[in-house]
This record gives sequence, C-alpha cells and structure tokens, in this order.
Amino acid sequence: MSRIAVIAGDGIGTEVITEARKVIDAVAPGFEYTEYDLGAARYHRTGEVLPDSVLDELAGHDAILLGAVGDPTVPPGVLERGLLLKLRFVFDQYVNLRPSRLWPGTTSPLAGLKPGEIDLVVVREGTEGLYAGAGGVLHRDTPAEIATEESLNTRHGAERAIRDAFARAANRPRRKVTLVHKTNVLTHAGGLWARAFQAVAAEHPDIETEYQHIDAAAMFLVTNPQRYDVVVTDNLFGDILTDIAAAVTGGIGLAASGCINPTRQKPSMFEPVHGSAPDIAGKGVADPVAAVLSGAMLLEHLGNAEAAGRVTEAVAAELASRTPGATLRTAEVGDRLASNA
Amino acid sequence: MSRIAVIAGDGIGTEVITEARKVIDAVAPGFEYTEYDLGAARYHRTGEVLPDSVLDELAGHDAILLGAVGDPTVPPGVLERGLLLKLRFVFDQYVNLRPSRLWPGTTSPLAGLKPGEIDLVVVREGTEGLYAGAGGVLHRDTPAEIATEESLNTRHGAERAIRDAFARAANRPRRKVTLVHKTNVLTHAGGLWARAFQAVAAEHPDIETEYQHIDAAAMFLVTNPQRYDVVVTDNLFGDILTDIAAAVTGGIGLAASGCINPTRQKPSMFEPVHGSAPDIAGKGVADPVAAVLSGAMLLEHLGNAEAAGRVTEAVAAELASRTPGATLRTAEVGDRLASNA
Ligand SMILES: CC(C)[C@H](C(=O)O)[C@@H](O)C(=O)O
Ligand SMILES: CC(C)[C@H](C(=O)O)[C@@H](O)C(=O)O
Repeated sequence: MSRIAVIAGDGIGTEVITEARKVIDAVAPGFEYTEYDLGAARYHRTGEVLPDSVLDELAGHDAILLGAVGDPTVPPGVLERGLLLKLRFVFDQYVNLRPSRLWPGTTSPLAGLKPGEIDLVVVREGTEGLYAGAGGVLHRDTPAEIATEESLNTRHGAERAIRDAFARAANRPRRKVTLVHKTNVLTHAGGLWARAFQAVAAEHPDIETEYQHIDAAAMFLVTNPQRYDVVVTDNLFGDILTDIAAAVTGGIGLAASGCINPTRQKPSMFEPVHGSAPDIAGKGVADPVAAVLSGAMLLEHLGNAEAAGRVTEAVAAELASRTPGATLRTAEVGDRLASNA
Repeated sequence: MSRIAVIAGDGIGTEVITEARKVIDAVAPGFEYTEYDLGAARYHRTGEVLPDSVLDELAGHDAILLGAVGDPTVPPGVLERGLLLKLRFVFDQYVNLRPSRLWPGTTSPLAGLKPGEIDLVVVREGTEGLYAGAGGVLHRDTPAEIATEESLNTRHGAERAIRDAFARAANRPRRKVTLVHKTNVLTHAGGLWARAFQAVAAEHPDIETEYQHIDAAAMFLVTNPQRYDVVVTDNLFGDILTDIAAAVTGGIGLAASGCINPTRQKPSMFEPVHGSAPDIAGKGVADPVAAVLSGAMLLEHLGNAEAAGRVTEAVAAELASRTPGATLRTAEVGDRLASNA
C-alpha cells in the first residue's frame, strides 16, 4: 500500500488538501497518510523550516501531497529555498510537470478561444539553472553593492528533462515538442540546451520539434496558445511560462503540478500552483480543483491511471456545470468530486 | 543640428526605417543622417559585425535609429551579442524604455479590453544582469558538459534604472511604479534590487509602489494589464515582460523602444521591437508604425517633445482609421503619417 506524506501547509493549503484527500480516498482507498506540519505557521512557532529528521521521514514515502506554504510575513526565500526548492533538489525532482487545458465551462481571458483549444503541458526542468542558489552579495546596502546569481546547467540535467518531454509527446496525439530558451543571449546555457535537444530529437524522428526564444514563447502563449503541445524549458523560464499558460486557461486556481522524480527512487511531490491565499483563507471558498487535479497526477504517477482518469473526468464535469460568477464552497466541490469520480 | 546614425539593417528593417525617416523629416527637418551598413547582409558578405572604426563613428552621433538586424542563417548570438547588445553596453544605454498602449483602432487578444485601458511603460535595465555575457561551457557536447550563465548586478546599475522609473512615474497621471523580480528564489540579485527600490521609493513618498514576482507579473499582464503604470525590472525579465505587454496591446508590430543613455554623454538608440521578418521582407507590406513611434521617442529624447507629440497623434489617427484585416502598404502609411504629423 502506497505511503503518502501530506504537507497541507498554510492558508487555503489545508482547505484544498482536505478535499484532494477526500477525492483520492474515494477512487483509491487505503493509502497510508502521514501529515507533516510544515510551512509559515510552524516557522513562526518554532523557527523551523524543514528539520533533517522530517526530511528523512519524507524520503520514506512514495509521494508527497502539498497544499501551499507561506504568508506575507515570512521573509522572501525562507520557505521557498528552505522547503519547496529543498524538496525538489534533495529528492531530485527533475521534471516539474505542468499541464494546461482550457476546460469546458471555463473562460479564457483571450477572446474567441473555445474550450479544448488549449491543451499543452510544460516540462520544466526542476533541479538546475538559476534555482541552484549559486551567487552572492558583496558590500550589502552600500553604493558599491554587487549581487550575482549563477545559472548552473548540466548536459545530464537538461537531457533527462528533454527525454521526458519527448516520451510524453510520443504518447500524445499531436506529437510535438517545443524547446524554449534564449540561445541568442544566453549562448552558453542556451547552447547546451540546444545541443541536448538536437541529440534527443534525433532519436525521435517521428516527433515534430521547434525552438523559440523565451520572449517569443511568452508572446505566442497569449496570441496563439493552440500551437503548443509539449514545451520543454529550464527552471526559470518554466516558472514564467507556466503562469502565463495558467492565466490563459482560466487562472492559477485551476493549475495542477507535479515535481516528479521519474526514477521513483525518491518521492515525487504534487501541489496546486496557487499559493496560500491569506485573503480568502478560512472562509471555505477556495477552489479545490487544482489540488484535486494534483491528486490525479499523484495517482497517475503511482501507477493508477484508471483512478486518475476518473478524477479528471469528474473535474471536467464539475467545471462544465458551474455557473460563471457563482460562489463555490470548498467542501461541497470536494464532496461532489468524490461522489462523481 | 543633431546627427543621426541610421542602421536600417536587414529584411523589413530597411523598409520601415525609410518611413520613419520620412516622418521625422516632415516634423523635424534638417537632421544630418549617416547610414551604416550593419547586420546579417554585411556579416554574410564580409564576416564583419561591428568594426571598431564604425563603433567610433557611431559614438560621434546624437542618436541611432535602428530598423532590425538578422536572418535565420546567422548563428544565434552573433548579431545579438556582437551588435545589438554591444551597442547597448558600450554606449551605456541603461534605460531600455518600452511603452505599451492599447491604441484606438487596435484590438487586444484579451477579451473585453477597450482602447486606452492599457497604458504602461516598462523601464528595463539595459546594461547588466544575465545580458552581461558572463559564463562558459566545459566538456562541450559530451555527457560531462556543463554551462553557466551569470547574472551580474550592481547597486549602481539597478538604482539608476529605478531612479529613471520613478522620474517617469512622477510625470504620469497615475504615479505608480511596480518592481518586478524574483526575490523569493533569486535572493541575491532580488535583494539588491529590492533594497535599491526601497531607497529610491523613500525619496518619492508621493509615488505609489508595489512589488511582484516575475511569474505573477507575467500572469497579471494577461489577466489585468490595466493595473500597471511604470514597471521597472532587470534586463531579462524586461525582455519577457515587454513582449507580453506588446502581445496584449496588438502585437510587436506596433511596439517601439529606446535604448537610452539618459546622461546624453553617449548616443541612445531607438528601434522597433519587431525583427527583420524575412517572410514578408521585400513586399512593401510591413507596418512602419513601430519604427515611426521609435522615431518619436528619438525626437523626444533629443528635446523635441512637440514634434514627438505630433508624430504620436498622427499614429493614433492612422491606427484609429484602419479597417481590421485590410492589407497596408508600408510607403503609403509613411506618406500619410508624414503629411498628417
Ligand atoms: C514559490 C516558488 C519557489 C515557486 C517557483 O518559483 O518554482 C513557484 O513560483 C512555483 O512555480 O512553483
Ligand atoms: C535580439 C535580442 C538580443 C533582444 C533582447 O533580448 O534584448 C530582443 O529580444 C529585444 O527585446 O530587443
């Protein structure tokens, strides 16, 4: 029986995770859950972000389900570097997977787009690049201050993310992979990515490929998001592109993600893209759909594609049945999804 | 009399620059123009990108008007690093200014947005960050390959861009500056930018300020672009944000930009954001509006705000009078703008 670590976190994180578990339990009963109290609340209470003992325990699980961590009073970087990115790096979650679909019943801010017309997935590299944390500051807060950030890229790291993207494209109807980088300016890292991409593409002559600069891709996600199938890119560009992709498909309220270690030797982590949303926390009005869809990705990762498919279909039906503008109740949405899945 | 260096460049670059000059000549006759043959064509013919002698000559001008350089057969980075970025860095053009307006007569891809509702300007730092070119590759094209890119940031560099943004905001009705960075992950550089921003903001208590992460800003440019007035950000984030801003205001076909050295000790450069567009080059159908608006920015920079205003009004009238979908003729648009300005 699979063992799931649950980090519900702060704000609406706890609310949406309750519903995600409800739905997972309905379609795949019997998982063993362990709850871990991590996030802003614990940090304020104890000063701890991610004790080593907790990290060791997390390593013993098959997957991690995370809600959202943070609140505006935690200094920037503390929970991001100390918890979220630490988990991604320590568990070598090198595929940060972020699907975007324009679901029936949802409205894109883009004029004239119809549900179904956007169906893309971004394979964002999750363990390298500017997220490595390399860099420093000298002469802080003086006129002589300098700061550096270093993007570290390995062929190993780029290639395994690119391989994953091609494998996914091979299982999708359109069979297309777009590499996004900025090879005309970031010639060193861009060159490495382009070389790795070419090498993997050569093994997949049946898959269509294209390359775009990050600025152009950001633009095309707005003017022509239909053109994308699988997009593979580095950690920072993926961060930006997936938020744009979420925006054009109805907002990060619906966006699910997985930080995946495809080798399964270490736990993968599944989390909605949205944050802890302190402004609506505690009111029971947060939309749990992104958390539930992250749960479906967890099920799929653990080999239960059938249950994942049922959850996804229940979400599709839920979204299609919504009246635009109507307020929703978090628990009611979870109940409906659990009984329909 | 001001001396203007003209780098018309490749593809539609030459076509749109002809019209920009036509319009500038109509409103501010008597500039002395020198044409410089630089770009992909010259690179193919002679292997030269930017000879030192040309660089010296350019330095003697009051401003540079650039069309577009490049074609798909030039290796990535050659003209970007060797020409465009070299000019920005050598002439210390630290304010890369990119206004975005939803003009009357143009349509945003965003549903429900009305002309006038978007009116923002991005002050993109132009001489630092990941554009510094610092980095390298080891073990190229082997499994052991690594590549680095280093973002170099100085208080000096961030602060002067931020100061420029506040000065611009002080002259705009909404008086608001948004700092965009990624302080929660890029803690070193983000910290430097945030500290510089706070220091400058403290000198401007009458200007509203906000901070957003780059991923959130990219999203809000799609879901709520009306919220922005002046945005200040680093070189790479500015590259991405300004293309999104262009996309939501009708495309880079209308986007003008200035690479400005506000000290005027070295020449500033004005160029449309679009590229050389080899697919439509030579047909006389490229829209010269972005080049003409870049010409207006040049006039403004040289102290002729009155002439710049006339050009901008002529462009507004031109765009308002267009029939959506109708093909335009580059030269006819230029003629109309020249006679109406
Ligand atoms: C919170 C932050 C560290 C994170 C990131 O930048 O990856 C978030 O924006 C995301 O996309 O998951
Ligand atoms: C061509 C390239 C070097 C340039 C940049 O990245 O700055 C372009 O995208 C721009 O925005 O002017």
